[in-house]
Amino acid sequence: MNDLINKELKENILKITLNNPSAQNTLSLDIINNLKKIILNADSNNDINVIIIASTGKIFSAGHNLKEINTHRKDNDQGLNFFTTLINSCSDLMLSIIHNSKPVIAEVNGVATAAGCQLVASCDLAYSSDSSIFATPGVNIGLFCSTPMVALSRVVKNKHAMEMLLTGDFVHADKAKSIGLINNCFKEKDLNNEVNLMANKISNKSTLTLKIGKKAFYNQSEMKITEAYKYASEVMIKNMMQSDSEEGIKAFIEKRKPNWN
Amino acid sequence: MNDLINKELKENILKITLNNPSAQNTLSLDIINNLKKIILNADSNNDINVIIIASTGKIFSAGHNLKEINTHRKDNDQGLNFFTTLINSCSDLMLSIIHNSKPVIAEVNGVATAAGCQLVASCDLAYSSDSSIFATPGVNIGLFCSTPMVALSRVVKNKHAMEMLLTGDFVHADKAKSIGLINNCFKEKDLNNEVNLMANKISNKSTLTLKIGKKAFYNQSEMKITEAYKYASEVMIKNMMQSDSEEGIKAFIEKRKPNWN
Amino acid sequence: MNDLINKELKENILKITLNNPSAQNTLSLDIINNLKKIILNADSNNDINVIIIASTGKIFSAGHNLKEINTHRKDNDQGLNFFTTLINSCSDLMLSIIHNSKPVIAEVNGVATAAGCQLVASCDLAYSSDSSIFATPGVNIGLFCSTPMVALSRVVKNKHAMEMLLTGDFVHADKAKSIGLINNCFKEKDLNNEVNLMANKISNKSTLTLKIGKKAFYNQSEMKITEAYKYASEVMIKNMMQSDSEEGIKAFIEKRKPNWN
Repeated sequence: MNDLINKELKENILKITLNNPSAQNTLSLDIINNLKKIILNADSNNDINVIIIASTGKIFSAGHNLKEINTHRKDNDQGLNFFTTLINSCSDLMLSIIHNSKPVIAEVNGVATAAGCQLVASCDLAYSSDSSIFATPGVNIGLFCSTPMVALSRVVKNKHAMEMLLTGDFVHADKAKSIGLINNCFKEKDLNNEVNLMANKISNKSTLTLKIGKKAFYNQSEMKITEAYKYASEVMIKNMMQSDSEEGIKAFIEKRKPNWN
Repeated sequence: MNDLINKELKENILKITLNNPSAQNTLSLDIINNLKKIILNADSNNDINVIIIASTGKIFSAGHNLKEINTHRKDNDQGLNFFTTLINSCSDLMLSIIHNSKPVIAEVNGVATAAGCQLVASCDLAYSSDSSIFATPGVNIGLFCSTPMVALSRVVKNKHAMEMLLTGDFVHADKAKSIGLINNCFKEKDLNNEVNLMANKISNKSTLTLKIGKKAFYNQSEMKITEAYKYASEVMIKNMMQSDSEEGIKAFIEKRKPNWN
Repeated sequence: MNDLINKELKENILKITLNNPSAQNTLSLDIINNLKKIILNADSNNDINVIIIASTGKIFSAGHNLKEINTHRKDNDQGLNFFTTLINSCSDLMLSIIHNSKPVIAEVNGVATAAGCQLVASCDLAYSSDSSIFATPGVNIGLFCSTPMVALSRVVKNKHAMEMLLTGDFVHADKAKSIGLINNCFKEKDLNNEVNLMANKISNKSTLTLKIGKKAFYNQSEMKITEAYKYASEVMIKNMMQSDSEEGIKAFIEKRKPNWN
């Protein structure tokens, strides 16, 4: 799969590049499984602090491979078994990003549609070129973007999500930014550099602290506020007892850079 | 009620027009019940793909009819029975929009306040003229917009909702757009055409797909993410097995328009 | 503590001013406990309709007092007992704002970081000078802003919250406004006046109505929509039976100012 998904580890940043532009970087079952494996492996790799997901070509990802889906309709079960595996694997991939201890950044240059748009929505942070466009166009092919909507509706407000889902229309980078689907957009020539700056900035933090924080973020977001405070307070107190916090606070008081454990 | 609420069915789009401008298109109990009946009937009418809610006059809707409320204070029970029926019917109307299988679009030209603003917030999509204004001014008459807030707080962020609710101040169309209360605003002369274009675009999708998607949207939005993915994956797999999805994907591959079932 | 926290009650508005600029208005355990006491007392004080939280100096609040934390590492238990008390007290303070029957407005002029930023996010409304900046920079000192994130993630969308939390970067007033962390920002010279206008406007409403509405807002926001409508409908019906609502509606119909009970 090295040809279809490139991996590069540099300065503790793992850059995963979807590299199948002739197939519009579609998320075939094979690609999904390989991407998931890479992301899960990164979770326990101490050399990796931050993950970037990028692509080659003009299409970040066009989502599921419709030809693959069409072919499997000829299976004995009209594709049921394959579709079940495909969709569940894709959902697992998205959850593996959220549950990953390393921050995951989408670097979008081009078109992100359906499960490709879901991938962007699922990353902790997302940056794009200012010509990038986003859509959940499943409704146009009779297959509502029901799993992409899980990610989409958790990062943008209801009416914006609904418009994308019901019309399938493209949203340009500036609107994607204003509705919260991406954090920011840049000139295409600056995108890579901007994402690297962001990844480096995060990579220089304590990995233990990032791990604690990211996990707590998604956990508390699903709790009622009183419960969330109880939980986050426990997380915070534990975090305060750890050596990275002791060192960080000392360094701050002594006006020097911290040395993480 | 034909005079107070107009219905027009054209090209599978049901346009409901509040037509009681001299009473500020208030939502009296009669109007609420008739509106609910029309919307519930549309749910099972195969000739209807999309619903538009519009109005005549300069006021989209001023919410509850305060004179009606005031009159019922003279009831033997000081109005308790009437108020209970009124508020529960109004909440049922809003839920009938969300639970409706057809996408519902608000076309707002003018003032939308209290339950009128709630109606806008409750629709799946909302578009307005750029001179339209929105408010939840119950606080000014000692009657906090508690039921409107249910809809409002699900489409705009907390601090924006709180400002509207605590001050009762008007929000202009451009701000309503920026906070997510409406999708977009247009020049008054273009509003009708823009909404029709949007309704037509959606009406041309597979109605089965729209039904599946809208229901799944609201259902999954109230689940924790892991549960939401489990549920949405099941929805997606079922959707993939349906003929509209088979046809839609085939048509896409063959670069032709799909013929929905 | 009168020197470190000023209180001023004027026209039913309680203005609480953090007044320890030389210590960056940090939220030491003493300050937290005193602030909480003031806010809890205000809850049952009939002379207070609205609470403003402001500060003196160029820093609204820098969050926890890191020197205090550092000192307590020398305790027999490495600070565990103190940290537990500190964090739980701080979370209780934030909840005391949300659970308070009086609307609480943050008036931010300067830098609001960590628990200081949490304080802004926790207030019902927040206004700042246009040069104010906001951050959750705990990640820079190995202590993720886990409790601040509870408040932050409930007022801004996920990707914006994540960027603030993972980078610790400052967000300027205009961006804070666009993402929903604050309601609005003004020229520094106008801030005080604008906040007073807002506080006065709210203070002139029925306090009973504000109490009902604020409580209902946060309660319903944690419910599923069907349950939320059931609950809010009951709140609304009760509210309609009260004399302030009767008077407010009568006054509206008679085109005069209401006289609240």
